[in-house]
Amino acid sequence: MSIEPVLARIDADLPNAIERLKELLRIPSVSTDPAFADHCQVAADWLVADLQSIGIEATKRQTPGHPMVVGHVEGDGPHVLFYGHYDVQPVDPLELWDNDPFDPQLEDTPKGQVLRGRGTSDDKGQLMTFVEACRMWKAEHGKLPCKITFFFEGEEESGSPSLIPFMKENAKELKSDVALICDTGLFESKTPAIITQLRGMLCEDFTITGPDKDLHSGMFGGLAMNPIRVLNKVLAGLHDDNGAITLPGFYDDVPELSDEIRSQWQSLAFDHETFLGDVGLKAPAGEVDRTPIEQVWSRPTCDVNGIWGGYTGDGFKTVLPSQASAKLSFRLVGQQDPDKIREVFRAYMANHLPDGFTVEYRTEKGAPASQMSTEHSAFEAARVALSDEWGRPAAFAGCGGSIPIAGFFKDILNMDAMLVGFGKDDDQIHSPNEKYDVESFHKGIRSWARILDAMTG
Amino acid sequence: MSIEPVLARIDADLPNAIERLKELLRIPSVSTDPAFADHCQVAADWLVADLQSIGIEATKRQTPGHPMVVGHVEGDGPHVLFYGHYDVQPVDPLELWDNDPFDPQLEDTPKGQVLRGRGTSDDKGQLMTFVEACRMWKAEHGKLPCKITFFFEGEEESGSPSLIPFMKENAKELKSDVALICDTGLFESKTPAIITQLRGMLCEDFTITGPDKDLHSGMFGGLAMNPIRVLNKVLAGLHDDNGAITLPGFYDDVPELSDEIRSQWQSLAFDHETFLGDVGLKAPAGEVDRTPIEQVWSRPTCDVNGIWGGYTGDGFKTVLPSQASAKLSFRLVGQQDPDKIREVFRAYMANHLPDGFTVEYRTEKGAPASQMSTEHSAFEAARVALSDEWGRPAAFAGCGGSIPIAGFFKDILNMDAMLVGFGKDDDQIHSPNEKYDVESFHKGIRSWARILDAMTG
Repeated sequence: MSIEPVLARIDADLPNAIERLKELLRIPSVSTDPAFADHCQVAADWLVADLQSIGIEATKRQTPGHPMVVGHVEGDGPHVLFYGHYDVQPVDPLELWDNDPFDPQLEDTPKGQVLRGRGTSDDKGQLMTFVEACRMWKAEHGKLPCKITFFFEGEEESGSPSLIPFMKENAKELKSDVALICDTGLFESKTPAIITQLRGMLCEDFTITGPDKDLHSGMFGGLAMNPIRVLNKVLAGLHDDNGAITLPGFYDDVPELSDEIRSQWQSLAFDHETFLGDVGLKAPAGEVDRTPIEQVWSRPTCDVNGIWGGYTGDGFKTVLPSQASAKLSFRLVGQQDPDKIREVFRAYMANHLPDGFTVEYRTEKGAPASQMSTEHSAFEAARVALSDEWGRPAAFAGCGGSIPIAGFFKDILNMDAMLVGFGKDDDQIHSPNEKYDVESFHKGIRSWARILDAMTG
Repeated sequence: MSIEPVLARIDADLPNAIERLKELLRIPSVSTDPAFADHCQVAADWLVADLQSIGIEATKRQTPGHPMVVGHVEGDGPHVLFYGHYDVQPVDPLELWDNDPFDPQLEDTPKGQVLRGRGTSDDKGQLMTFVEACRMWKAEHGKLPCKITFFFEGEEESGSPSLIPFMKENAKELKSDVALICDTGLFESKTPAIITQLRGMLCEDFTITGPDKDLHSGMFGGLAMNPIRVLNKVLAGLHDDNGAITLPGFYDDVPELSDEIRSQWQSLAFDHETFLGDVGLKAPAGEVDRTPIEQVWSRPTCDVNGIWGGYTGDGFKTVLPSQASAKLSFRLVGQQDPDKIREVFRAYMANHLPDGFTVEYRTEKGAPASQMSTEHSAFEAARVALSDEWGRPAAFAGCGGSIPIAGFFKDILNMDAMLVGFGKDDDQIHSPNEKYDVESFHKGIRSWARILDAMTG
């Protein structure tokens, strides 16, 4: 079957594809906040109906958390599974959005047309690139090119608590030849990338308690230890002056890059000054003896994602607070074990708490880093297809983010996973004014059509 | 005139005095939050009416902020001015209150009956001790014992922006022989105190900005500097390992205690283990080479009163935020100049900001420390009267808090100010579940009647 008529259909139908995506984006399926649970159900229902409209047998599958959507279609050739997630990040601070995050709008920008709204890039827009590719293939050929399983989750942004149990319980149903995952980005905006290296993650969400009530800083200041001061000291002590993390043994299981990867990365035109300059920054913040691309792709990190304590309203209140809190995340690489790092961090915290202070932890979330195998024939097919579509050789790249699903496919279902995505560095995912370039959406759909063609041709 | 019948009237009328105070407490006159401005007007109106009911010529006087209340009554003997403030602190975190902060209730506790609610101790309850003493005196004798000016402000908890201009514009009207101020506490719950030493204050409310938008910590973590990390480092660096403040020259204008004060303080039974133990703490947090009483009364401090940045809601968001903010206050002593300390702090901040980072300051609030003169005869009269009422010798004590009004009376009106109050260390002022002991209120009223008697007898 020729790919050209499918690509032509994709081009012609793009306005309709955007309208369908907008429908899905209008459903505020924020997974981390229980107040939005009903919307997650509605988003799953929408996807079931949309898959059914292409002739795919799809069902909503309840879990203790938000539901999964699973769909199957029979066909010849390889059996591929496609994974995406329909849940989105919270939208606060809402006042920094230029418009309603759940009323997506097309917008002309100097860099081209974009669709702006929560989830446009992460991950509803990316998920729909594959669905639209299938819809157009079916419209042209009356059937899909191979056996496909669709697998969408609604808890990716909240730690995927139901994912592993669901994969285990339904292993036979989900087992395929290879998993395709669309939740990553292009390399430097124009070069297609297949991600083969992902950082893991350890999250710690905790509160330090000192005095058993808020105190007046005039009456107690100087004599009573302030929990914010303790928190500042604990967090400031996590990095040394060279930007390295100080926890004992933290780097023990961090591998050095192979010469091959190092030279491949050196050949990539990664311009960290532009990368940082695009978001208003000047100097790299990581370890001074590592290149910027290593800092973001292959080195472990520690970042405070949230901090709060005391009086934060208008005006001034000279309170000496009882508590101070933070949300901390470590990005892990190589063989770093989240459980071991957690232990080391908590021992460090215990050593730094003044007598009488306590700490309460609210999280137990961690995933190790993963290194993809690229042996499945899908990788070579995708490399050729992506290079054809984008007019540049596709890169086998690293990724700073954590996409634990890739490791789960290997561990639980013994399947290789291939990560291909079309996000750009300035998509502002997890931030106000998230967007997805119409070019990413359009060429993303075309890319999947070409990849399916290359895999089955 | 004998004091006994006045004291007897005070005892008999206590339930009515409590009811009047409750009326004032029900008005949520939070000065720092503009949403409560109308309530400040209502509280001022209530005080005007209450003073008028005792035959005092009282008026509400508008300012660019919240209004002043000024009242005059003629009489023989010395001319005293009484100062108090009718505004209160914000009530958040509201969920930590056991009942509505603006629906004050009498409550029996193991330590005696208390009135619980915002402003009971700071400062509506204290302010009313003097008003009630005057009311009973008038009821007994038909007139007050001397010429009295009443002066109540509604901006004490928000930096008193209108106070100095108002004092200057109305200097002639306000000028009296001595100012009586009721906004301080007892010494160790049972011993009356006249405060002769007050710490000053410098507040800094600021936001550090790094990246020009929130970033995804997976995509940027390790490479992009996190403003929370910068803030932690800046704040953690303000204290050294001995608890001393590190800003260059910070201690230059801090005097050593005189031998006389040092030995007087040593004779006070200040038990810091109990003082700290009452609020769940164990060890003193101040300079290790200073006694606990010095740490809280005569040494300068630095405390973070509020901190915030990044994602602070439920769940987890791996954001690398654009901004991080804090509210910081320094308690100043001796000749420390708030303007100079501000300059030194801001220079320190500028030195610690990474290239490309900016900081925005929202406050310009500062007041130097003050040392009271105790030469006016009112001090000796009060010492005797307080000792009689409480059955223990009154202490000339220091106070960790900042009550800039005392200095203003000296500087602007050339009047000595005498600080007498009946708060207790566990009143939880500025905190949830603020209370005022009924004993403080009752014996406070009796104390003022005795002081007026001693000053005019």
